[in-house]
Amino acid sequence: MIAITSNKTSDERIQEIVQFIEKQGVQAHVSKGEDRTVIGIIGQADPKLAEQLRQMSGVEQVVKISKSYKLASRDFHPADTVISIKGVEIGGEQLVVMGGPCAVETPEQIDEIARLVKAAGGQVLRGGAFKPRTGPYSFQGVGVEGLIMMAEAGKKHGLLTITEVMTPEYVDVCAEYADILQVGTRNMQNFDLLRKLGTIQTPVLLKRGFSSTYDEFLNAAEYILAGGNPNVMLCERGIRTFETYTRNTLDLSAIPVLKSLSHLPVISDPSHGTGRRELVVPMTKASVAAGADGLIIEMHTDPDNSMTGDGVQSLFPDQFAHLLSDLEKLAPLLGKKFDTKKEAILA
Amino acid sequence: MIAITSNKTSDERIQEIVQFIEKQGVQAHVSKGEDRTVIGIIGQADPKLAEQLRQMSGVEQVVKISKSYKLASRDFHPADTVISIKGVEIGGEQLVVMGGPCAVETPEQIDEIARLVKAAGGQVLRGGAFKPRTGPYSFQGVGVEGLIMMAEAGKKHGLLTITEVMTPEYVDVCAEYADILQVGTRNMQNFDLLRKLGTIQTPVLLKRGFSSTYDEFLNAAEYILAGGNPNVMLCERGIRTFETYTRNTLDLSAIPVLKSLSHLPVISDPSHGTGRRELVVPMTKASVAAGADGLIIEMHTDPDNSMTGDGVQSLFPDQFAHLLSDLEKLAPLLGKKFDTKKEAILA
Amino acid sequence: MIAITSNKTSDERIQEIVQFIEKQGVQAHVSKGEDRTVIGIIGQADPKLAEQLRQMSGVEQVVKISKSYKLASRDFHPADTVISIKGVEIGGEQLVVMGGPCAVETPEQIDEIARLVKAAGGQVLRGGAFKPRTGPYSFQGVGVEGLIMMAEAGKKHGLLTITEVMTPEYVDVCAEYADILQVGTRNMQNFDLLRKLGTIQTPVLLKRGFSSTYDEFLNAAEYILAGGNPNVMLCERGIRTFETYTRNTLDLSAIPVLKSLSHLPVISDPSHGTGRRELVVPMTKASVAAGADGLIIEMHTDPDNSMTGDGVQSLFPDQFAHLLSDLEKLAPLLGKKFDTKKEAILA
Amino acid sequence: MIAITSNKTSDERIQEIVQFIEKQGVQAHVSKGEDRTVIGIIGQADPKLAEQLRQMSGVEQVVKISKSYKLASRDFHPADTVISIKGVEIGGEQLVVMGGPCAVETPEQIDEIARLVKAAGGQVLRGGAFKPRTGPYSFQGVGVEGLIMMAEAGKKHGLLTITEVMTPEYVDVCAEYADILQVGTRNMQNFDLLRKLGTIQTPVLLKRGFSSTYDEFLNAAEYILAGGNPNVMLCERGIRTFETYTRNTLDLSAIPVLKSLSHLPVISDPSHGTGRRELVVPMTKASVAAGADGLIIEMHTDPDNSMTGDGVQSLFPDQFAHLLSDLEKLAPLLGKKFDTKKEAILA
Repeated sequence: MIAITSNKTSDERIQEIVQFIEKQGVQAHVSKGEDRTVIGIIGQADPKLAEQLRQMSGVEQVVKISKSYKLASRDFHPADTVISIKGVEIGGEQLVVMGGPCAVETPEQIDEIARLVKAAGGQVLRGGAFKPRTGPYSFQGVGVEGLIMMAEAGKKHGLLTITEVMTPEYVDVCAEYADILQVGTRNMQNFDLLRKLGTIQTPVLLKRGFSSTYDEFLNAAEYILAGGNPNVMLCERGIRTFETYTRNTLDLSAIPVLKSLSHLPVISDPSHGTGRRELVVPMTKASVAAGADGLIIEMHTDPDNSMTGDGVQSLFPDQFAHLLSDLEKLAPLLGKKFDTKKEAILA
Repeated sequence: MIAITSNKTSDERIQEIVQFIEKQGVQAHVSKGEDRTVIGIIGQADPKLAEQLRQMSGVEQVVKISKSYKLASRDFHPADTVISIKGVEIGGEQLVVMGGPCAVETPEQIDEIARLVKAAGGQVLRGGAFKPRTGPYSFQGVGVEGLIMMAEAGKKHGLLTITEVMTPEYVDVCAEYADILQVGTRNMQNFDLLRKLGTIQTPVLLKRGFSSTYDEFLNAAEYILAGGNPNVMLCERGIRTFETYTRNTLDLSAIPVLKSLSHLPVISDPSHGTGRRELVVPMTKASVAAGADGLIIEMHTDPDNSMTGDGVQSLFPDQFAHLLSDLEKLAPLLGKKFDTKKEAILA
Repeated sequence: MIAITSNKTSDERIQEIVQFIEKQGVQAHVSKGEDRTVIGIIGQADPKLAEQLRQMSGVEQVVKISKSYKLASRDFHPADTVISIKGVEIGGEQLVVMGGPCAVETPEQIDEIARLVKAAGGQVLRGGAFKPRTGPYSFQGVGVEGLIMMAEAGKKHGLLTITEVMTPEYVDVCAEYADILQVGTRNMQNFDLLRKLGTIQTPVLLKRGFSSTYDEFLNAAEYILAGGNPNVMLCERGIRTFETYTRNTLDLSAIPVLKSLSHLPVISDPSHGTGRRELVVPMTKASVAAGADGLIIEMHTDPDNSMTGDGVQSLFPDQFAHLLSDLEKLAPLLGKKFDTKKEAILA
Repeated sequence: MIAITSNKTSDERIQEIVQFIEKQGVQAHVSKGEDRTVIGIIGQADPKLAEQLRQMSGVEQVVKISKSYKLASRDFHPADTVISIKGVEIGGEQLVVMGGPCAVETPEQIDEIARLVKAAGGQVLRGGAFKPRTGPYSFQGVGVEGLIMMAEAGKKHGLLTITEVMTPEYVDVCAEYADILQVGTRNMQNFDLLRKLGTIQTPVLLKRGFSSTYDEFLNAAEYILAGGNPNVMLCERGIRTFETYTRNTLDLSAIPVLKSLSHLPVISDPSHGTGRRELVVPMTKASVAAGADGLIIEMHTDPDNSMTGDGVQSLFPDQFAHLLSDLEKLAPLLGKKFDTKKEAILA
């Protein structure tokens, strides 16, 4: 960390700042410029120190050199994290495809979609039982019943399941029924939820906040890791930009950047990331080309009548199957493996 | 609501869409253009209908004409909402100033600051007991103890109190000790929290999400109102923009816009809205000139040593007092009343 | 186009609005809702009409249904535009790679880089002779001399050339020496420049403004097309977002969206789009997967010492060659052709 | 300036970087941390050095401590710049109001509006003769004729005039007729235009680019100042944000920030800054409260029929007069003077 004084800071004040720093058990290294003085802080500083320095009079700027997250950082964990769930490995060579409807609606719906996801070569069934909605009058999901329907469909067809959890008190019941818990974009900084997820071992797919920086995203992951749950995957799902033609702007640079800053697996969500069915196919391929470890894609047998209104971004089953078959060809050229004909991988 | 078809939609498909609309119990009014056909929907449609239409094939665009929030809208409630708490009226002629530290630290600190807020003419004491922090290793607040300290200081000095609540399970204890509950920017769309706040009557100050639109903000307020709590005030606290010199960009246009779209009181937070002490004074005055009903301002007796690192945006006590004395002169020219010498208004 | 009245507009005022519309030679179709009245405008309206209606009292909202650009729109020109320059076809099956330094520096530098671009399989040599720079004290390019150096290098090695033109008065000299003229991101709405480019036939690569919407981008292209120059290609080069880790955020969704809204070729610039060398390789592949017709990539023999300071985003020659060889394998799976061993395509 | 190496940079490489720095005639001061090494650069470095260091391998981050603009900076010019034009002083105690239509239309229109601006107490007549328009088919202004009409109206009514100049070749003719030249938001980085404006002495009102940072804005001003024209005023006119309800988001924090970073006068444009008539009044007052030196406000006698479609943001003459009369009362409380009844100030 470096503290830079203003050009009006007196030598006396600089001395006081140095003393303050040294009282924290770290060294201060003063370097006088023509204009401003630079104080380098050497040693393991308390994370609070940056904030404290920033507010001291005479200090103009504080530059953090080390990152504020540690457990999520590749500096401290050079090897890729591979999360293994019932034989599916996420973050390794295998490309992982999660498919399914925005919301679980009926047992028949989720069963049929599970069958189609499996047949196309997907490994994970997605589906929302609790839905976060901008307005209070929109469809909010079918609740715990939906969890049960999805768990059954997953089991029957040999698929892992993933579902969104919105509040700390529902973490346990969701973890009982689903293999992976998803934290939605609006909850990326719901710190109580993150803390609760740190207390269990169920893998978590953490979606990036739609206006969050990479640094904030990795700090959110750090909350879960610091709590003791190492099984976190990062999901790029589009950011808010000025463009209104697409629902969000899928930031594919996030994929190689996050893979370089962190060891955690990175998943791409081209469905929410674009909000338009016709963009899901090219953006899925582009995600894999950018280095994604997996994809989470909406697919629906009757998108015109989906209950959430997200049908407009859901693939039809044949588009989904065709896309996965294309991925099978592309993956080997991009350092991944994907086999649509693989035997059921789950016992 | 209007649905616009694409230029390739067949007459047959238009007929199907019309039938679908009429099945929902509303009328469809078809208007054929050279290129596209416009279908007007007349009557009280289910809020889900817009979403359903948007995903139907053949429909290119859906334009909502009515707003998706009702209880928050001035259309349905033309008169200003005035929230009255122990003699302080928020949203009326009186200008309301909430002042205090970012975080409650010790009984002495909060007592001394309460004394200074009162002496300067403020009506509400602010202070955080639970702090939302980007990284897991930052100071997270002193918890319930802080609530108690603040309640005592408020009572002793004749001030209302406001504090942030971060999770549904803490709503009850916060409401026990504080007069107003604050929802922070990261929780504006924490829907479970909003729902819980709808079940009580304690006034809520809802902060705008740092990347939220006015429409999303009013829909979040709608969650609380729809639950049965009419005592909601809206707080503009700065949005995220490309500028990094300021912590956020305080959007003062939000004040007259929200006052026109909604009947709820609007409060401005120039401290978080700018993140820099030297900007708090001009932006406070500008907030009042823009029509704010009140202000929430950070003030600290020893900002260099505040525990959260937010001291850099806290006013010193004399700056705070000087500012309030300036507001006393400005307010009458801007349609408000503010009297720094007023007798204690709380019993 | 649709005009929507406010809920307070009187029938009389609606009548006046209708009369105003009909005076413009188009039909007005009134559709009364419970709350608001919708007026559909049918026929070829003057583009000014939307603006006029928007400002009439009683009108709350105007929704354009047709696009404001025509020549750039796929609605009016369903087939892909293929721009053919000395045997290189841009916008067709062939993938086109433009490579070279940010700025032309010396004859030796540009000659050596041209040789390497050609050897790797590229078809176009890029290089700036005039450089737009944020501050007045930065290196501003070598000027017309640079144009001559680049033209010679291109000719010698059998490459087309592309260079940036910054002001109308330099269009003619740039067109004399270069095969393609580039309009930079800061000039996307330099309307005098666009108009001047409409008066010639030299192909133009128009870069998207870093905060522009797709609609504004296509309207800027429309300026050139409307002037009489049909040879326009669109270039996605990254938008400004909150993220500061990358220089810009490359918006790859722009590729399939622009290909669907328009018939013009779409080129991706992963160098400026990311600003970091290590991201150029994955984002180039992702661009091709998203459907790009071509790429413009910075490559430098000595990036540590490039004169513009853009070396940090330039590939080394061997990275460039390796990348193009990877593209050769990927392209056929993505509907394109790319042959690094092709004979010189230019006479 | 500070260069920070990566945690993998060898001592040897650090030595090379130091040697490179010292070859530029400045000192390098090495400070070894546990993790990374910090190299402080002491002395007057060439502005290019930052860019060169940033691209050197082994360097992870370069932090500029000094600003890249000098002439625009208050560090180098502590006193406020006051621009005096025919007795009107901009940047001093006097509040300056510029009013008028978006576009000059006819001699009668501009004469009548000039009369009303003067009667209300304004000092400058605004009006566009050349209009920058997003689409090529919109009204583009009446050209040089408009300049003449406006000059006559200004002279007759004792008002200064301001008009927009869009391209270097029109600078001279605009300067012949108008007292102040305006650079529009889309041209803030039209560097050839800025350079041309540096060669004359006519005062320039430079509008902030709608996505520009303060630093970029001040660097654009630096272009004009560095050319030799010291008469530059900065204009905040709203930035692009996610909000679509307003045309732009007027960033009033820009006013105190720019006043603190720079000595140049700061003008606010609440008309373009909001795009809605009903917001112009509160945002004008808020601008003055935030410390603006002046305002540029659209006013039209017949906004429903303005030719540019900007009527929706134009005040009616009586609103304008009423607003200026309110400013007369507010200004003294905010450190400014404004006298609506003042005798004609121009000879």
